Amino acid sequence: MTRCFDNMESQTEISTIGEFGLIGRITDGIEPKNASTVAGVGDDGAVLRYPDTDVLVSTDLLLEGVHFDLTYVPLKHLGYKAAVVNFSDIYAMNGTPRQITVGLGISSRFTVEHIEELYSGMRLACDIYGVDLVGGDTTASRSGLVISITCIGDADKDKVVFRSGAHDTDLICVSGDLGSAYMGLQLLEREKRVSAGDKDFVPQFEGKEYLIERQLKPEARKDIIAALSSSGIKPTSMMDISDGLSSELLHLCKASDTGCRIYEDRLPVDYQTAAMAEEIGMSAITAALNGGEDYELVFTVPLHCHDTVSKIEGVKVIGHMTGPELGCALITADGGEFPLKAQGFNHMPAADAS
Amino acid sequence: MTRCFDNMESQTEISTIGEFGLIGRITDGIEPKNASTVAGVGDDGAVLRYPDTDVLVSTDLLLEGVHFDLTYVPLKHLGYKAAVVNFSDIYAMNGTPRQITVGLGISSRFTVEHIEELYSGMRLACDIYGVDLVGGDTTASRSGLVISITCIGDADKDKVVFRSGAHDTDLICVSGDLGSAYMGLQLLEREKRVSAGDKDFVPQFEGKEYLIERQLKPEARKDIIAALSSSGIKPTSMMDISDGLSSELLHLCKASDTGCRIYEDRLPVDYQTAAMAEEIGMSAITAALNGGEDYELVFTVPLHCHDTVSKIEGVKVIGHMTGPELGCALITADGGEFPLKAQGFNHMPAADAS
Repeated sequence: MTRCFDNMESQTEISTIGEFGLIGRITDGIEPKNASTVAGVGDDGAVLRYPDTDVLVSTDLLLEGVHFDLTYVPLKHLGYKAAVVNFSDIYAMNGTPRQITVGLGISSRFTVEHIEELYSGMRLACDIYGVDLVGGDTTASRSGLVISITCIGDADKDKVVFRSGAHDTDLICVSGDLGSAYMGLQLLEREKRVSAGDKDFVPQFEGKEYLIERQLKPEARKDIIAALSSSGIKPTSMMDISDGLSSELLHLCKASDTGCRIYEDRLPVDYQTAAMAEEIGMSAITAALNGGEDYELVFTVPLHCHDTVSKIEGVKVIGHMTGPELGCALITADGGEFPLKAQGFNHMPAADAS
Repeated sequence: MTRCFDNMESQTEISTIGEFGLIGRITDGIEPKNASTVAGVGDDGAVLRYPDTDVLVSTDLLLEGVHFDLTYVPLKHLGYKAAVVNFSDIYAMNGTPRQITVGLGISSRFTVEHIEELYSGMRLACDIYGVDLVGGDTTASRSGLVISITCIGDADKDKVVFRSGAHDTDLICVSGDLGSAYMGLQLLEREKRVSAGDKDFVPQFEGKEYLIERQLKPEARKDIIAALSSSGIKPTSMMDISDGLSSELLHLCKASDTGCRIYEDRLPVDYQTAAMAEEIGMSAITAALNGGEDYELVFTVPLHCHDTVSKIEGVKVIGHMTGPELGCALITADGGEFPLKAQGFNHMPAADAS
């Protein structure tokens, strides 16, 4: 299987260049892309200038052994994903990500080249999404890799979308398809068990490439935010789907004081997800509802936006909001009604998430 | 010795209330104190509004076993310190801290009450310094406590002070005294070794209370920033002293393309620091130069500010900048000249920090 610690020809111990040498290597050549970035790496803090817009801030902590497994996650992909999932939070507020800061805890088994590889993924994500890396903190870790990213973005004052703005009868929409990242994780975990440390093991991913890509290299839905804007639609509420659709819908309904109905036959599921679900004897709908890390958007729009929102490529109407007294439920193809539960993908127990 | 896991009567497993229950408990009753805080905890991100000022961002990562030892650091103190050291970075840019986000990785031995205790320290720091806690990320950790804090602040556009603005002949000033936090750490480590797991051990801290306080409950020099401002002085360069004076001066000189001379007999050392240094057979000057975590400010001012800056309580002129060709040196009481080295307090090897 892909291993982070294979295939690197010349390796440099971090101790030979020190913390500041390492920071110099990984931040070399970084140039601001955004007008709001006044000064970036190399001081006690970064300086940003946001005269006419609201500033959005989001933070994520990723820990080895909890959020990622370096047995099958290449460091460059990890860096890319760590950055993109933060951009996703800013898009989910209807904003544009502009800057990130990166806190990195590095255990002794990592070399300079490993950290450069990780950073190359973050910098690639920053290049693609037009984001500036403006600072951070690098330290030793006694236990595995720690990645903490804070993303700063902006949105025009009247454009920010909160979780709390949905109303009864609003349409519930999702972008892309759901459950594929979770199936990608199942696939990688299975191949890891099968390979069981065999360095020459070649994993079987044919016909499942999409699932692997969704797990290892997710994208944030910048395109959907742009399409909504150009269609003249401002969602009434929005979140990105990191912990599973059920969990996120429960959040939206709680914050907006609504209930909801979503329809099983409207949930967007890719055929690779459906095939993999069948292969492992799991319901694809369960994966779509509770599998995490899709980083798609779930949002609500007023009923009168039905025709406009339906025309946006990659967006599907899956249900509608209701009064809070009706609770949150999935309507199955045969008309059955099942309450939504947040049994999702949390890295902490979610006892009272509902 | 003080132990975080003693003396807590009723303990609640985090699994019984879940991630969102925990977040609810620790963020309960948080109200914005700053006009720039439009929306805080409870969405994908926080919303801030900074129409007329520059925005400053700084981030710090604190890892158990590297940055703190819960054998002798009470959780409330840890929370307080974790917040304050971030405020210190913003003050070191001549700004005012306004918001923090908190990423927390929690291993299974922590209960709800432990995390509330940690948060109570952060919230106390936020109350005292007028900062809003606006968001974060809470997750499980397989290995010890992880604290990642990002601080956002502001400064009028012409007020931000960088590391790079010092000139030849500028006076070098420091606030407070140096080396005491390092001596506090030595003291705590010694008592830990002596106690060696004896629960009833009573540590001997008489006459050394100041050292313990400097290590466990540092303060950020908000007062010095205010005094400089009311004296009409804008430093030409500034940093906070987290890794030791030598290391920070080397940063200032490198960024400003200068050299420097500081004078041994001008270095501010508290008598408790000097006494403890003698007790353990260490030079107090070494502690002042290389001991970390004092969170005092080192800054430079033009020569003509000498009289004004000397009048500010708690500020001492310790030397001056030179041309870069002269390098960075300490002048001893007998006129000897020793190059400054960054052997400081880094949590990573600092091979080429100079």
